[in-house]
Amino acid sequence: MDRLGLTLVILDYAAVAVFAASGALAAARRRHDIVTFGFFASITGVGGGTLRDLLIGAPVFWVGKPSYILVCLAAAAAVWAFGPGARREASLLWLDALGMAAYSVVGALKALSLGIPPFSSVLMGVLTATFGGVLRDVVAEEPSVLLRRELYVTPALLGATSFVLLRWIEAPVMVAGLAGFLAAFALRGAAIVFNLSLPPFGGRAPPA
Amino acid sequence: MDRLGLTLVILDYAAVAVFAASGALAAARRRHDIVTFGFFASITGVGGGTLRDLLIGAPVFWVGKPSYILVCLAAAAAVWAFGPGARREASLLWLDALGMAAYSVVGALKALSLGIPPFSSVLMGVLTATFGGVLRDVVAEEPSVLLRRELYVTPALLGATSFVLLRWIEAPVMVAGLAGFLAAFALRGAAIVFNLSLPPFGGRAPPA
Amino acid sequence: MDRLGLTLVILDYAAVAVFAASGALAAARRRHDIVTFGFFASITGVGGGTLRDLLIGAPVFWVGKPSYILVCLAAAAAVWAFGPGARREASLLWLDALGMAAYSVVGALKALSLGIPPFSSVLMGVLTATFGGVLRDVVAEEPSVLLRRELYVTPALLGATSFVLLRWIEAPVMVAGLAGFLAAFALRGAAIVFNLSLPPFGGRAPPA
Repeated sequence: MDRLGLTLVILDYAAVAVFAASGALAAARRRHDIVTFGFFASITGVGGGTLRDLLIGAPVFWVGKPSYILVCLAAAAAVWAFGPGARREASLLWLDALGMAAYSVVGALKALSLGIPPFSSVLMGVLTATFGGVLRDVVAEEPSVLLRRELYVTPALLGATSFVLLRWIEAPVMVAGLAGFLAAFALRGAAIVFNLSLPPFGGRAPPA
Repeated sequence: MDRLGLTLVILDYAAVAVFAASGALAAARRRHDIVTFGFFASITGVGGGTLRDLLIGAPVFWVGKPSYILVCLAAAAAVWAFGPGARREASLLWLDALGMAAYSVVGALKALSLGIPPFSSVLMGVLTATFGGVLRDVVAEEPSVLLRRELYVTPALLGATSFVLLRWIEAPVMVAGLAGFLAAFALRGAAIVFNLSLPPFGGRAPPA
Repeated sequence: MDRLGLTLVILDYAAVAVFAASGALAAARRRHDIVTFGFFASITGVGGGTLRDLLIGAPVFWVGKPSYILVCLAAAAAVWAFGPGARREASLLWLDALGMAAYSVVGALKALSLGIPPFSSVLMGVLTATFGGVLRDVVAEEPSVLLRRELYVTPALLGATSFVLLRWIEAPVMVAGLAGFLAAFALRGAAIVFNLSLPPFGGRAPPA
């Protein structure tokens, strides 16, 4: 396997694992059983990449490879065994941030490597990064990450755009990937810590 | 490009633009930021066509062509700049009606042109016409258009059926397309203005 | 058509019909009109199999064959005509159980027959069995079957796993299919009647 492929695979598994853990934490919050833990972990873990693969017409990445779902089930089992108690909410938020940052790069990388145009590859990064969390929130019937005030889509957009631009100027894939990941994670982290948000619509001229 | 292709493209962009605007208006109602405007506009604008393409096994129309998403972003920017204030709700309703009518024809047209049987082509028209709005309502956490009392699926069904039947008797695609569009829009418009609805289940024998 | 194909087709139509009826019952509960009955019946009836086909890269089963949707519409018409009144809730629950059990086998069978690995075939069975109901609950804005306490995913998992294991040891497809169906239905039925559930997370150490 070449370096590009290896990067893709490692980031892919890492993103799957942390997103899966965030799905299991959502199941923990509602005190679900172990099977539902596995189900939530799996759809959150592979949901974003599944949408990406369907949209770009690639074989869905986990269907031929049990290892991805096994990673999700292991993450679910870990959350079940070592459930983080009082720190659960914060863990969920930060795991989601890690998964989002990794997937913004992975999604764009896979799209680029299959010959998708750069602009659409950025969008694939954003969708891959956000859709797993959206799916988790929909099935868990929690308020969607998309509707929160702090930046969420924006960090994914920053990460994917940075990565695609750096690849465009022929930066090595490791450099571009790391830069994209860090950019996305740093902005999302700042958004969580400082409650950063973009000005809302109408914020410039509030109704009297 | 032949006439069929041109019709498809023009209607496609028009439907994308108005649906995208309706998505941006949903974001405006919740006072979201500009990135979320773009996100909502994009998924509403291309959601129905994306489902259609996945179901009929065609390459997803916007992935290889940035222009579709650029139209969505332009619609989002326009709503942000000229946000319609008090008329927002009504605008959303009527834009949604326009997009629905156009997509009921576009969805059926694309399916027919790829050799999908007429009956399934009607269904593709209906799905294309309704799914963008459903997606918008799900991510915006608003009551789904599907659950409103006034006719919504029915006009899409009328538009797609009219179009497919007219094509079946070999009417020119322009004529069939315009007839289908007008039928769908007129019925949906009447439903909005006169609050038209079909008799509900059990309406014939109300509980005592 | 060989025996495998015939089994697949019969179970497929049966599962489509009962799930479609459960969709129409959900529409009845909200007193929707006949078109919405048909819409709900169709997406519930074919939703699970559609997801399966998209994931395994097969042509979506109902697009080329109007008969599947016609079965859904017939089920919707039957519910409309003979609406079960006071027994509606119970009917919905049991029809859903039948559809779930049939689809857990059908989903796994189709995946296996297309060369999908056994582990992923089990997952396809579970997704096929559960996704139609999830979709029904999302569009009807009802609490998702996934969030109920009694076993729901577990019976689907049992049915699909039994079927795949029996096929693995080369049991005839009829035997494996019937065993899988009965296992899933019996467990789900017991869950409904006796309100069975797995221990919830944290159940072993309830908060003081």
